[in-house]
Amino acid sequence: MHRDRFYTLSASCPDQVGIISRVTGFIAEHGGWILESSFHADDITGRYFMRLEIRADSLPFLLAEFRERFRPLAGQLEMDWKITDSAVKKRVVVLVSQQEHCLYDLLARWQSKELNIEIPCVISNHDTFRGFVEWHGIPFHHVPVTPDNKLQAYAEVKRLFEEVRGDTMVLARYMQILSPELCLAYPGQILNIHHSFLPSFVGAKPYHQAYQRGVKLIGATCHYVTEELDQGPIIEQDVIRIDHSDSVADMVRYGKDIEKTVLARGLRYHLEDRVLVHGNKTVVFR
Amino acid sequence: MHRDRFYTLSASCPDQVGIISRVTGFIAEHGGWILESSFHADDITGRYFMRLEIRADSLPFLLAEFRERFRPLAGQLEMDWKITDSAVKKRVVVLVSQQEHCLYDLLARWQSKELNIEIPCVISNHDTFRGFVEWHGIPFHHVPVTPDNKLQAYAEVKRLFEEVRGDTMVLARYMQILSPELCLAYPGQILNIHHSFLPSFVGAKPYHQAYQRGVKLIGATCHYVTEELDQGPIIEQDVIRIDHSDSVADMVRYGKDIEKTVLARGLRYHLEDRVLVHGNKTVVFR
Amino acid sequence: MHRDRFYTLSASCPDQVGIISRVTGFIAEHGGWILESSFHADDITGRYFMRLEIRADSLPFLLAEFRERFRPLAGQLEMDWKITDSAVKKRVVVLVSQQEHCLYDLLARWQSKELNIEIPCVISNHDTFRGFVEWHGIPFHHVPVTPDNKLQAYAEVKRLFEEVRGDTMVLARYMQILSPELCLAYPGQILNIHHSFLPSFVGAKPYHQAYQRGVKLIGATCHYVTEELDQGPIIEQDVIRIDHSDSVADMVRYGKDIEKTVLARGLRYHLEDRVLVHGNKTVVFR
Amino acid sequence: MHRDRFYTLSASCPDQVGIISRVTGFIAEHGGWILESSFHADDITGRYFMRLEIRADSLPFLLAEFRERFRPLAGQLEMDWKITDSAVKKRVVVLVSQQEHCLYDLLARWQSKELNIEIPCVISNHDTFRGFVEWHGIPFHHVPVTPDNKLQAYAEVKRLFEEVRGDTMVLARYMQILSPELCLAYPGQILNIHHSFLPSFVGAKPYHQAYQRGVKLIGATCHYVTEELDQGPIIEQDVIRIDHSDSVADMVRYGKDIEKTVLARGLRYHLEDRVLVHGNKTVVFR
Repeated sequence: MHRDRFYTLSASCPDQVGIISRVTGFIAEHGGWILESSFHADDITGRYFMRLEIRADSLPFLLAEFRERFRPLAGQLEMDWKITDSAVKKRVVVLVSQQEHCLYDLLARWQSKELNIEIPCVISNHDTFRGFVEWHGIPFHHVPVTPDNKLQAYAEVKRLFEEVRGDTMVLARYMQILSPELCLAYPGQILNIHHSFLPSFVGAKPYHQAYQRGVKLIGATCHYVTEELDQGPIIEQDVIRIDHSDSVADMVRYGKDIEKTVLARGLRYHLEDRVLVHGNKTVVFR
Repeated sequence: MHRDRFYTLSASCPDQVGIISRVTGFIAEHGGWILESSFHADDITGRYFMRLEIRADSLPFLLAEFRERFRPLAGQLEMDWKITDSAVKKRVVVLVSQQEHCLYDLLARWQSKELNIEIPCVISNHDTFRGFVEWHGIPFHHVPVTPDNKLQAYAEVKRLFEEVRGDTMVLARYMQILSPELCLAYPGQILNIHHSFLPSFVGAKPYHQAYQRGVKLIGATCHYVTEELDQGPIIEQDVIRIDHSDSVADMVRYGKDIEKTVLARGLRYHLEDRVLVHGNKTVVFR
Repeated sequence: MHRDRFYTLSASCPDQVGIISRVTGFIAEHGGWILESSFHADDITGRYFMRLEIRADSLPFLLAEFRERFRPLAGQLEMDWKITDSAVKKRVVVLVSQQEHCLYDLLARWQSKELNIEIPCVISNHDTFRGFVEWHGIPFHHVPVTPDNKLQAYAEVKRLFEEVRGDTMVLARYMQILSPELCLAYPGQILNIHHSFLPSFVGAKPYHQAYQRGVKLIGATCHYVTEELDQGPIIEQDVIRIDHSDSVADMVRYGKDIEKTVLARGLRYHLEDRVLVHGNKTVVFR
Repeated sequence: MHRDRFYTLSASCPDQVGIISRVTGFIAEHGGWILESSFHADDITGRYFMRLEIRADSLPFLLAEFRERFRPLAGQLEMDWKITDSAVKKRVVVLVSQQEHCLYDLLARWQSKELNIEIPCVISNHDTFRGFVEWHGIPFHHVPVTPDNKLQAYAEVKRLFEEVRGDTMVLARYMQILSPELCLAYPGQILNIHHSFLPSFVGAKPYHQAYQRGVKLIGATCHYVTEELDQGPIIEQDVIRIDHSDSVADMVRYGKDIEKTVLARGLRYHLEDRVLVHGNKTVVFR
């Protein structure tokens, strides 16, 4: 949505007096124009978080030199940090099964440039959406997953992700549980949309569980994938009201609307480096 | 909200062809004017639910005679049913501890006649709100609860509830777990407000649990109390958005706003006989 | 979502004692199994509204005979009524301009059979989505609209709609104001999605108006099109929270998510005969 | 919610490179510990906004000296600014008529110290709540307002507000239109709760207007009072879903729940110096 090219610096470090001053002082010294800035101090853990957008053309050097010059200060502050360039599109690999709502939704956002990304390929355990994906000019890979071939299948997914130099993997209602290897290989890079308001209704058939319990709202959760099923850091959640007249099939239908919206919001936060993972939680600078 | 006196018939029975026709036929036969009517068929269990509001002055007889005349049809349909009179105020006993938000809220609604009820007394394990409650002309009973006196304390609560001929007991953030005896004595008559979006975060300190898990919405649940803690039929729920900057104390503060609203909505549904319990779930005809 | 074929009877008539009884009595007499039923009395105007779903295989005759047999009772009750068959798909003509979010969303719902419809054609004043629409096997008509050719253009839209025997016309962010002739030709058949929470911000550039006024929520409204711009009966609305940091471009982006969801919900209510128009308002039996 | 005393600096100034750096540099220089910080650049007007919470005990001087020392920098940056002390409670004068929901709600929040304020008096055009207010130990002033005495009445309100050294005036469903003199005397100090989602349904009887238009959500708006009725800068808004079955009386009842919540949220933002007025809009740093 920004008209101009900008860099996004996101970082965390132990809290102390003077962090904002020193970081923004460094930027100001070089004439850097800060477009957007967010800071958060976690009182409990004493960790400090920040995110800054800086106009690229306000700085007298490029990103490589920024990194070089910023490194000493980052070292003094014991920072975990990165800086990215809005002109470099993130490469998002989408994994789907046989439900279209998230896939159509993501491709519409990609098509309209609402999501400023490349989709180097779509991977699926079914061949259902080959035509639709290929019509958009995006390569489609059918990688079947059976009880017997899981190791090979996920090795193939990993190979494809590496081959296309993916930054982010999105499980857009993929309906398969990734192998621990894959989860561990890409921490903070794999996003899932779970069709319940976590931590309620972990695992399979959450709408059936919700129906059984008689809840009055159902939800969806976008989270980073970790080794433990549906236990990763939560990025975004939302809910929708239901009532006694709604069957499981109705919930599935309503649920799709929040699933795709929550996934799209969570993905955008992730792509814009608005999400900083902190233990099993997230700081999300909206 | 109705200008005129009306009767509310609520019922459930095994589903079959012709239920609505036979019940509304009975009413029409006597000239009964139906103000509001709701029906629900549960496909899974084959049970049928209904709620009807009938203008009192449109019928040529009083409630006692209605009951007498309706009984044969209800028998044929194997109905669980009841009919109540809007002119007879329900008697609601409120239990509180030391948090005022739900108490102030309920008394404001009682004062303004938004809730068409009598509050024959307020019971508390602390003496904190005696003055406030008594200023409203409502008797206040201090029944301390300690680890040692629970049996006697809940026996006293039961005695007071019986003495004032209570219809409904409301745990307005009462912070004590009722004895199984009390729960079993009044099924479908005791309402609790739990400060989480159940089934997430059952039991103590749900906001601490929510903080730990890093959820992005927190909620409140109004449910009927059963022997199993926080497992009773859910009447109403709602949520509010939070983010990483919110401490547990912030969540407690935000939470109060949904707790009191959800409790008030759930209580109103209950008082207007809009809630029909079905196993561990509810049908709520709003 | 119903497994079985059913008929939907929707009707309104002057209120009087015995309506439900007589209508459901007629159905019960023929063994009709009512799956879902909703009733509403408008106190102010004295008009009565109803909607009933009846299992097709529970009746001993087909729809034509139902209509024949029901007509006398409908006449006595002075009913406006219709009955439709879930096995007959409604024919929905979609009009779009150059924004894809509603189009992708509708086609995903059509593809997955969430919307039980035929889309006999898509009409657009631009050629942008020809490929996408035709890939789905749906005919695409490019009908350019210029200041000079409006009359002919809308005559052509009308001709196409008639040619494909359309039931419903959906303006899926069509961005053109239909001619009065077209509006008058299809009352209660043309749905629009307006990108504001009506009645706020009528007409052009509602997000710019919202930005100027500094509102804290933005919305979308699905309504029937009438001769007066953005004044037709409202079917569905929703809102999303924004804040001071959101530019007009951000609002446009957020707005798309509610626009497509609100349009899809409103369209489903319409297609399932859940919407009864009453003056400039709607009864929506969800 | 903060355990410790802190100062809140809120400011706006023309945007330029280096603002954050210079302001936080000044604070860091004196060892100031920043607890919370928010910044916003308005792209359209080129104005920059900020809010900082600084731990009082981290600074080597008191507020008076902070002001003295900060003044030169503020001058260079052409800032509008103020700094307040969390240990000094704001003095909030509440104006009510005959509806209790906002009054009970505010007093509950004051009682529980959720709102860290003094309420030096309540003023009403009716005597209805004298007992309730006085029971809380708060002076109550009955200032009747008639078509003939408006000038004197508002002069008396002004006199009382000055006498108790009020900081903020809250119209808690006051139902009277203040005189232009009063509005102009306290810009950004008088908060109103309007019972509609502005700009829809300005003026009297908004729920009747909403009923007539057939909207599917109703709302409430907390805004600063200006000379123009219901046109002042919006601080906070929210909505609640209704449907065709809701009468105006139902809307009034539902509306109360959002009115009191929206007012309380808006008031808290205001009291914590989270609201910066900018033309007819607000920046709200939540």
